[in-house]
Amino acid sequence: MADTSNNGAGLRGQSAGSTALCTVGKSGAGLTYRGFDIAELADKARFEEVAYLLLKGKLPNQTELDAYVARLQRLRGLPDALKSVLEQIPADAHPMDVMRTGASMLGNLETEHGFEEQQDVADRLLAALPSIICYWYRYSHDGVRIATETDDLSVGGHFLQMLHGEPASELHARVMNISLILYAEHEFNASTFTARVCASTLSDMHSCVTGAIGSLRGPLHGGANEAAMAMIEDWQSPEEAERELLGMLERKEKVMGFGHAIYRDSDPRNAIIKHWSRKLAEDVGDSVLYPVSERVEAVMWREKKLFCNADFFHASAYHFMGIPTKLFTPIFVCSRVTGWCAHVFEQRENNRIIRPSADYTGPEHSEWVPIEERD
Amino acid sequence: MADTSNNGAGLRGQSAGSTALCTVGKSGAGLTYRGFDIAELADKARFEEVAYLLLKGKLPNQTELDAYVARLQRLRGLPDALKSVLEQIPADAHPMDVMRTGASMLGNLETEHGFEEQQDVADRLLAALPSIICYWYRYSHDGVRIATETDDLSVGGHFLQMLHGEPASELHARVMNISLILYAEHEFNASTFTARVCASTLSDMHSCVTGAIGSLRGPLHGGANEAAMAMIEDWQSPEEAERELLGMLERKEKVMGFGHAIYRDSDPRNAIIKHWSRKLAEDVGDSVLYPVSERVEAVMWREKKLFCNADFFHASAYHFMGIPTKLFTPIFVCSRVTGWCAHVFEQRENNRIIRPSADYTGPEHSEWVPIEERD
Repeated sequence: MADTSNNGAGLRGQSAGSTALCTVGKSGAGLTYRGFDIAELADKARFEEVAYLLLKGKLPNQTELDAYVARLQRLRGLPDALKSVLEQIPADAHPMDVMRTGASMLGNLETEHGFEEQQDVADRLLAALPSIICYWYRYSHDGVRIATETDDLSVGGHFLQMLHGEPASELHARVMNISLILYAEHEFNASTFTARVCASTLSDMHSCVTGAIGSLRGPLHGGANEAAMAMIEDWQSPEEAERELLGMLERKEKVMGFGHAIYRDSDPRNAIIKHWSRKLAEDVGDSVLYPVSERVEAVMWREKKLFCNADFFHASAYHFMGIPTKLFTPIFVCSRVTGWCAHVFEQRENNRIIRPSADYTGPEHSEWVPIEERD
Repeated sequence: MADTSNNGAGLRGQSAGSTALCTVGKSGAGLTYRGFDIAELADKARFEEVAYLLLKGKLPNQTELDAYVARLQRLRGLPDALKSVLEQIPADAHPMDVMRTGASMLGNLETEHGFEEQQDVADRLLAALPSIICYWYRYSHDGVRIATETDDLSVGGHFLQMLHGEPASELHARVMNISLILYAEHEFNASTFTARVCASTLSDMHSCVTGAIGSLRGPLHGGANEAAMAMIEDWQSPEEAERELLGMLERKEKVMGFGHAIYRDSDPRNAIIKHWSRKLAEDVGDSVLYPVSERVEAVMWREKKLFCNADFFHASAYHFMGIPTKLFTPIFVCSRVTGWCAHVFEQRENNRIIRPSADYTGPEHSEWVPIEERD
């Protein structure tokens, strides 16, 4: 497994620890959370149920789930000091910088004083992160101070209600639920690994999540669905899409939303979100974006044997629900915070500080030259 | 080198990349920055000169150094929105949470829009982080809105002047200079590795530094000098120190500031900071804390063959300069930000996303049970 021949490039294939949370790409395709197949979870579960599974280790019974949903609903409000901070952030800020700063600020106000508080801090972050991004977005873009408490019981429906100022339709709430399940956990990806490295110093939960948000912000990681949207939104027909895409491939430009570091044949999340993107297209009467997306998928497979990953059809799905493109990656945060926190619990349970080595490529010995003699 | 037999525990001994910045523990003791011995740098260099060396790859000539020092001096001011954020953080917050939030907030206001801005962002962080911590500290503890611009040319002297409201003595400025040099860089430690994992997603500099601060906050990493101070500050004599320490060892309590993950025989930074701690003790007429510290060092060696690392005599040194214990780790940030940024430059120069594997320990397949049938 361990490939030590290439200067540890990216630690690919090297084990950095143990997890009971997730398998990615077993026999080339699958994704499981605590042994449950992602397709079954997306079909049957509520996102809050999956969060419970990841954070507490088992599926809740009805009483437990009801209590957990009510608990998350109660934890949505933001302290005044945090609202003041969000109001200081300009409208043209990067929304992931807002998420990072919001999570960090919350750590000043509700510090995790010991690991016995970790479940509470995780629940609070899960409940508060949608409030953080929507409060900032609506204040900076619309000049409105929204209430971050609604009567919608689901995280996804609540998010849409804060964003649009009205209850989400049943279809939209359902798709958000599925989307949040699909993005909740993905083993030792770079943001989760960031959280585990931070946790390995025995630092606090807010530091771990803040660091993970910073890593998810990177265009090689969380930004793919936004980049996919930016690519497809200007194309007016499948024919135009094919023509432009072939040009991009000829110019060797990177096409976001395709292929994966781990999956070899397909991303099991794609078929699921694609199905719901089509439903949403029918619902809004779209005759452009979905056909364009399907054509891009077909061309990428025909030309490059590259398959859609989870991000590609998320772009059109989110767009059909009226979500601004710049909020796509923050939604990813609202979901993945469950996986991050569950990994922090695991790291703390059986910890050794993560401190790799490096190959030194610098000078063996440098001779000090007095400053007046330097070139 | 690679130890794959223990589930990748902590990635110890596994290469996670290349660096030309630093060697740690070569032949058991040494520490070099770009090939320069740490003892020579601490003796001859200015911290700003070492920052230049790490960030720009060579020692500056006099003209370059003067320009760099003047540049850092110009970059000390904080935007009003950042000051407002710091004023929202209560006095009992963890100072590392303040640093993390301040660095993150700065990213909202002065976003790095492309890697061609990376040197500027690094310089700005280096200049602004002391202002961030001192502005918050003086506002929350003393109710004073300090000016974060002083005429002191050095980062260390400037920090002390903001903290104490008067220019630093020559001795204090000198010791701060040396301390900042000693802490500037240390290869793939956990906070630096956090910065590199974040950088490997091609995220922005503020995310990398924010994440690194979160990891340095952990008691297994940056908190050791604070913990050492907390241990020794109550002991009134070397005899009491020895008695109490032996009790701690008998109870198998952890003694902070001793031993090291990489160094085997000694930490080359210890002799240097110990020397200056003694000078400071003479300067303030101390007859307790320094003798207590020396006795602790002797007992730990006699009983456990454990040597002082860089942190142990930093505790007394900082204390003699009137620095509150809770600001010890933030000073570490003000120094190490040079190493973090230099590592981000390196990671970006030759990047592959850092994405290790994990050993799966969970269930192979979990059977979905309808919620009404669950226990």
